[in-house]
Amino acid sequence: MTTKPAHLPPLDPRDPEAAIASAAEAYRNWGRWGDDDVHGTLNFIDEAKRVEASGLVRRGATFSLSQQFNGEGPQSGWRGRVNPVHLMTDTGLAAAAGIQGFPHGIGGSDDAVFMPLQASTQWDGLGHIFDRTKAWNGRDAASVVTNDGDQFTGIQTAAAHFVSRGVLLDVGRTFGADGQLPDGFAITPEHIDETIRAQGESSTVGRGDILLVRTGRLTRARAEGWKDYAGGPAAGMSFTSLGWLHEHEIAAIATDTWGFEVRPNEFDNAFQPMHQIAIPNMGLYIGEMWDLDELAEDCANDGRYEFFLTAAPIPFTNAVGSPVNPVAVK
Amino acid sequence: MTTKPAHLPPLDPRDPEAAIASAAEAYRNWGRWGDDDVHGTLNFIDEAKRVEASGLVRRGATFSLSQQFNGEGPQSGWRGRVNPVHLMTDTGLAAAAGIQGFPHGIGGSDDAVFMPLQASTQWDGLGHIFDRTKAWNGRDAASVVTNDGDQFTGIQTAAAHFVSRGVLLDVGRTFGADGQLPDGFAITPEHIDETIRAQGESSTVGRGDILLVRTGRLTRARAEGWKDYAGGPAAGMSFTSLGWLHEHEIAAIATDTWGFEVRPNEFDNAFQPMHQIAIPNMGLYIGEMWDLDELAEDCANDGRYEFFLTAAPIPFTNAVGSPVNPVAVK
Amino acid sequence: MTTKPAHLPPLDPRDPEAAIASAAEAYRNWGRWGDDDVHGTLNFIDEAKRVEASGLVRRGATFSLSQQFNGEGPQSGWRGRVNPVHLMTDTGLAAAAGIQGFPHGIGGSDDAVFMPLQASTQWDGLGHIFDRTKAWNGRDAASVVTNDGDQFTGIQTAAAHFVSRGVLLDVGRTFGADGQLPDGFAITPEHIDETIRAQGESSTVGRGDILLVRTGRLTRARAEGWKDYAGGPAAGMSFTSLGWLHEHEIAAIATDTWGFEVRPNEFDNAFQPMHQIAIPNMGLYIGEMWDLDELAEDCANDGRYEFFLTAAPIPFTNAVGSPVNPVAVK
Amino acid sequence: MTTKPAHLPPLDPRDPEAAIASAAEAYRNWGRWGDDDVHGTLNFIDEAKRVEASGLVRRGATFSLSQQFNGEGPQSGWRGRVNPVHLMTDTGLAAAAGIQGFPHGIGGSDDAVFMPLQASTQWDGLGHIFDRTKAWNGRDAASVVTNDGDQFTGIQTAAAHFVSRGVLLDVGRTFGADGQLPDGFAITPEHIDETIRAQGESSTVGRGDILLVRTGRLTRARAEGWKDYAGGPAAGMSFTSLGWLHEHEIAAIATDTWGFEVRPNEFDNAFQPMHQIAIPNMGLYIGEMWDLDELAEDCANDGRYEFFLTAAPIPFTNAVGSPVNPVAVK
Repeated sequence: MTTKPAHLPPLDPRDPEAAIASAAEAYRNWGRWGDDDVHGTLNFIDEAKRVEASGLVRRGATFSLSQQFNGEGPQSGWRGRVNPVHLMTDTGLAAAAGIQGFPHGIGGSDDAVFMPLQASTQWDGLGHIFDRTKAWNGRDAASVVTNDGDQFTGIQTAAAHFVSRGVLLDVGRTFGADGQLPDGFAITPEHIDETIRAQGESSTVGRGDILLVRTGRLTRARAEGWKDYAGGPAAGMSFTSLGWLHEHEIAAIATDTWGFEVRPNEFDNAFQPMHQIAIPNMGLYIGEMWDLDELAEDCANDGRYEFFLTAAPIPFTNAVGSPVNPVAVK
Repeated sequence: MTTKPAHLPPLDPRDPEAAIASAAEAYRNWGRWGDDDVHGTLNFIDEAKRVEASGLVRRGATFSLSQQFNGEGPQSGWRGRVNPVHLMTDTGLAAAAGIQGFPHGIGGSDDAVFMPLQASTQWDGLGHIFDRTKAWNGRDAASVVTNDGDQFTGIQTAAAHFVSRGVLLDVGRTFGADGQLPDGFAITPEHIDETIRAQGESSTVGRGDILLVRTGRLTRARAEGWKDYAGGPAAGMSFTSLGWLHEHEIAAIATDTWGFEVRPNEFDNAFQPMHQIAIPNMGLYIGEMWDLDELAEDCANDGRYEFFLTAAPIPFTNAVGSPVNPVAVK
Repeated sequence: MTTKPAHLPPLDPRDPEAAIASAAEAYRNWGRWGDDDVHGTLNFIDEAKRVEASGLVRRGATFSLSQQFNGEGPQSGWRGRVNPVHLMTDTGLAAAAGIQGFPHGIGGSDDAVFMPLQASTQWDGLGHIFDRTKAWNGRDAASVVTNDGDQFTGIQTAAAHFVSRGVLLDVGRTFGADGQLPDGFAITPEHIDETIRAQGESSTVGRGDILLVRTGRLTRARAEGWKDYAGGPAAGMSFTSLGWLHEHEIAAIATDTWGFEVRPNEFDNAFQPMHQIAIPNMGLYIGEMWDLDELAEDCANDGRYEFFLTAAPIPFTNAVGSPVNPVAVK
Repeated sequence: MTTKPAHLPPLDPRDPEAAIASAAEAYRNWGRWGDDDVHGTLNFIDEAKRVEASGLVRRGATFSLSQQFNGEGPQSGWRGRVNPVHLMTDTGLAAAAGIQGFPHGIGGSDDAVFMPLQASTQWDGLGHIFDRTKAWNGRDAASVVTNDGDQFTGIQTAAAHFVSRGVLLDVGRTFGADGQLPDGFAITPEHIDETIRAQGESSTVGRGDILLVRTGRLTRARAEGWKDYAGGPAAGMSFTSLGWLHEHEIAAIATDTWGFEVRPNEFDNAFQPMHQIAIPNMGLYIGEMWDLDELAEDCANDGRYEFFLTAAPIPFTNAVGSPVNPVAVK
């Protein structure tokens, strides 16, 4: 059910401010779940939804939708985002050398990591993006995210929420050559609807779904190397799809790209304008750098694009994002 | 079905070496799933098991079984294990100050973490523990876990596996005062069986289950502070329960304690002797520092101790463990 | 030469605000070295001073004034300050195992560290402390230290400056039992002057000197363990000594304690009030957690308390502090 | 004084093993300072040397020879070596917002760093490199550097040692166009001697000196960007210069390049063969990525290439290297 008109004037590439102001006004969910809300669109997932989703487990097949976390990832240090650095603090070499000091032949290894929370497959928390100094539900950005982290919507608040029906829209397969959309391809409502039609009934999207959109960008990175996967040109959601996302009352959306929205962005001078609407205004959780390829292959094979999905963030207290290993079960 | 005799001689507290040698011999699964196996007891989970498990989702209620990850955790630096250090690299304060340099009113925050992978709620990987220089499936520890991490059984190999039926055995509630077992309480097969009897039919344990054992140790830490939660005395599994765990062909086991097994250990001079059997010999995944309290309360209320469980590790390449946010769905 | 009156009214323990306001007014050096200054009291060191200092090298003996940096340090996590975590990324074990992949028999080891910059022996940078939202030289704190660090007075600006005459005042030896002052002992101008008299001519303090004050607090920690060395009670400088420090035009001051000033502080409800005057108002560099014991022993032996001192910070760009290994040469 | 013959057969590029074996034999200092020695060539610095060096302070001018430490450095992640990640844990923004919770108007900022110890300007410790599984003084690499770091020659053992006469040999200025040697330029004894001749008497090199060799490689990186400064082609010391370094009994050597020796190395299939002789066999400390440009300019101006040099490593316990901010005083 649509609660607000989703039809906005055509984009003027020279005026992101106007487009953002209109979209914020049209799709804002502030107060929708009370003044104290910290869950945003996760409120669309109710218990009945989860029971329904569990019925999608038919074969018992599982698919990890996470990229691996290691030093060979796509990050190049922008904004301090380096790839995860994995460090062994003890090893089998030490155990075999008999120098660990443990009794009765037990040996062990141990490890640590330094990583930006957005280094690889992740959820953006609701405190990750602000619109004109406002955070989700209309709170002041300055009081929400301090040096002690997110005081309201830290990722730990979503620890138990990401369990629902997942739907894969393989736009890359529907519109791309070799399953890959070209860089700069903006996925509009028309592309979404046509993909749903092409994929068939299992792809219907509705309230509380977690929507996965595959562009094929990761497939290409896998073939040719990361290059500018992190921050460079890519297919992605069009700013004009915000109304569709809003109307369909999805709980979250994730893509196989670095930044979810099409890049270059659809305005002459802009930086991730959809984020500015989706996160602070809609309260929509965004997943980025997911690996949808194996799942997409399976969906193409059996024609079923829906599944039971869990995508539990690591509950770092007051974090504005989290690494995640989403698992789809069909 | 039991494949090997589980009855071993009584423990001689003065001779951990003999007990370990016997138990290793009796419960060793090397070669059971082929010489190349990297999954260990996760092999007990098959697709049919997952379909069965999905049938346990009745109300759609979810429970995060993860402790929070922050600087206030139980770690004290032993073996380099500090609590996670969460660091904000950008904040709402900066966004509100208008100094981030982004266009059209978008602002953002970002964060990073330094953490030992075993700092909080986690899975031990199969390369985490060795028995007399041997790792899982009989491989040499020195060739399995180098400074580049686990070359065979890195946690990424289990990225899609931890989806199964979960069963909670609330031994704390069955045998403890106020739901808490005293420190040093060793949970034997008799305690396990009696807990199953007391809890009723939903608690039957079988092949492919992920077994959760609640001692109440975390409940006490919550009340009185961490103190020596990390590494100090605690209730936990008895060395004598290894046969039971082996016979029942569970896929994994997790507890609400730091170290899974009873502490002090049941030998005069020992360090985590069950680990030495469970991980390298049985190939059994062990979860530690899980938060089972909310789930336990719910199970006590509705009398159903079984549920659908996902517990997907973050796939750090070649890691010997991983933080995890397990989610139970009832 | 004194440029401002140093005599302030006696401290009223109930009114830190008044004392701070008076001291800030009396000892403020804003503008003294120009509006663009980023060096503060380091300006007191001129080239002639360094030539003079080099004449103090008589025996060629060196003394490192740094504590060691490791996981066994005094930090307990307050404000995210943990002890340095030192991590080996490659080892001799790996080299000996022949698995490093290097040719012709070369092998290597490598390491990394995670550490708060104030974890051990350090310099406070001029952006480390603010007085009523003002940073050194009257700049706005909000524009000086953002999430990108100190935009004006980052520690790299002092990379080449800390070379001068050093003078050790062993107040612990002069006034303490066994060379150690009791906790809460506030070092006043009278104590300073009496120590100089007791130590003799080599202890005269003047423009451009780097003043080292030994309380014996570290000596005690070495004997009894860290306990609350970091942040707990300690001897230290009295708020009433600020005038003395100002008049004598020292370039920097360092102590063997966690926090330089006496703790508990000399007001009923206060937190490091001297810092509030010394750093943002005077532009005075403060060194903390220095190890002065070996040097003190030597000074007591030969009666010479002056030396050539270098204390070069690691030039982390825009950092508000730095680890340092100061070296005294006599 | 030369203790061993320095004339070895000409290099056969196809046979690094033979060249390394010969050089190791010829220049090995094992046992020279006793079986327990952990200082290597630092033993060449005696107290008289330091007194002599202090006499070189004539103007009182100081030069920091450190590059800055930040995320914009040359590292690209090889072997886990990323650039330092500097993280603000508290800021002036927070102080100005009045949310820090401190009394009487005091505010503060704080920071942390994650960094490989060899990320920027550094000393290689004596445990950093092995020759055919042997570390400095003939110890077994496997027992010297474990996962707990260097058990014998950790960098903390050199905390007070790096104070001596420094000599700059500006080979870049002597032989290069615009002061820069081309990549692959191997600095031989002839180049060294000719540079000394060209620079004049102040450049004589002898026992206990810390030798600084400028190639101009950093100058170029400054002009054109880092590109492959870390690990790529560069001018540097020739393997044939090892005899010269050995004969002259220098205490340490440092260059403005990533890796000290010429790259590509002078053998067909090799990796840093000079390291293999210099560190484990000679016990020679090597400094890398030093910034010699400002000092070189000054030396060219006044014709004096000698100075008082301190280069104190941060004493990370058991570390195999350390960041350093060397300071030259003229």
